Amino acid sequence: MPSTSTEPTDDSASPGAVVLLSGGLDSTTVLALARERHPERPLYALSFRYGQRHAVELESAARQARRYGVAAHERVDLGHLGRLTASTSALVKGSPHEVPKGRDAATIQGAIPVTYVPARNTLFLAYGLAWAEALGVREIWLGVTAVDYSGYPDCRPEFIESFEQTANLATKLGVQGQRIRLVAPLISWSKARIIQEGHARGVDYGDTVSCYAPTSSDDAPLACGQCDSCALRREGFLAAGVADPTRYAPA
Amino acid sequence: MPSTSTEPTDDSASPGAVVLLSGGLDSTTVLALARERHPERPLYALSFRYGQRHAVELESAARQARRYGVAAHERVDLGHLGRLTASTSALVKGSPHEVPKGRDAATIQGAIPVTYVPARNTLFLAYGLAWAEALGVREIWLGVTAVDYSGYPDCRPEFIESFEQTANLATKLGVQGQRIRLVAPLISWSKARIIQEGHARGVDYGDTVSCYAPTSSDDAPLACGQCDSCALRREGFLAAGVADPTRYAPA
Repeated sequence: MPSTSTEPTDDSASPGAVVLLSGGLDSTTVLALARERHPERPLYALSFRYGQRHAVELESAARQARRYGVAAHERVDLGHLGRLTASTSALVKGSPHEVPKGRDAATIQGAIPVTYVPARNTLFLAYGLAWAEALGVREIWLGVTAVDYSGYPDCRPEFIESFEQTANLATKLGVQGQRIRLVAPLISWSKARIIQEGHARGVDYGDTVSCYAPTSSDDAPLACGQCDSCALRREGFLAAGVADPTRYAPA
Repeated sequence: MPSTSTEPTDDSASPGAVVLLSGGLDSTTVLALARERHPERPLYALSFRYGQRHAVELESAARQARRYGVAAHERVDLGHLGRLTASTSALVKGSPHEVPKGRDAATIQGAIPVTYVPARNTLFLAYGLAWAEALGVREIWLGVTAVDYSGYPDCRPEFIESFEQTANLATKLGVQGQRIRLVAPLISWSKARIIQEGHARGVDYGDTVSCYAPTSSDDAPLACGQCDSCALRREGFLAAGVADPTRYAPA
């Protein structure tokens, strides 16, 4: 896959990196990996409020951004995305669809589920690209994975490769031969491996939100334990042999 | 160019079309062409407020959307784009850069100018893609042109082709083989030809805003007559042999 960039460039090639940060398990692991790769360079965290039911994830994103000492953390309002896609996506508020519960991993990965948000990663990456180019930064890190995932088309390596190609045709940096790279270190990792790698680096998974439909408690969100994202996460901790710090709502 | 889609699909292939509409000369012409192509099908107009100095264009966009009887006109807030890119782009409010004035067409097309907004068309298309997929619509029309244009990398056919490929990898429609197409009918037209084609179809160019730095009068914006966009537009009317209805500010 010659055009893929799941690995970062030479350290010297980019004055820092933009990191897409939802506040979930995967993107927080990516933030830790980016920090490890660039201990001295600025990281720019980018989060999105798009009408998601689990907007509480953004509070974890803010804490994780501080924990890893980012140079800036931008929270972009993409509320219109939620309004335009509520008719089809169960993941956004106001949708007539419910978040599926109680499905096993094989079922989850069998078809594109109703939690799919049209063009979400394309929009996230487009915003990341705008910021990267304005900053003169040439790496955009993101936590997509095509293993133990929810079946979304915009998490697959062929999408990531294609977006990278488009990004280099779209921008002044690209036209001038200063290649912009998407860095997706988790793309071929199982959920168990993601957790093991992050755990070894001290990632605080207790302060990440994966659940699509969390409820609030006095001091922290409670995961439903039943949605696709909870199922993949719970099975990941089990397979990783790492204690699961997630606080689940009483069944 | 096998993957290019500068022409629309069979009329039967798409239940309508999303049209990116800035309220300028090019995108208004595209709206007229889309309406001609799909006299009975719904058109969905999409405009963006991104901190542009010439936000008055959105008022023309709203009037043109009504004129062509669109099924819906969404105005998306991308204010964050302006804030993230003001340091580099003269086109957005708060930028330290000024809009260049008094340049001739050869100079304008010689290099990427300071009015370039990083990843703007990528973001516009990503939003268009989200809406198209939510609607089940498979055409996205836009008014980019690679002739008599401002030298922006994201107006070139290679970018449009690449985005279309990415769009089909990103989405459920694409994965299911229901190909999404970008329709860019102006891509190889001169400004003069765009004006002639629109004029022949009765496009009201007096109610379009191309100027990057318009001033207000009592009842309508006045074009500066000096920016790159005014220069290309003014020369286009001259070359087309069509009377220029633009109201220019006194020199």
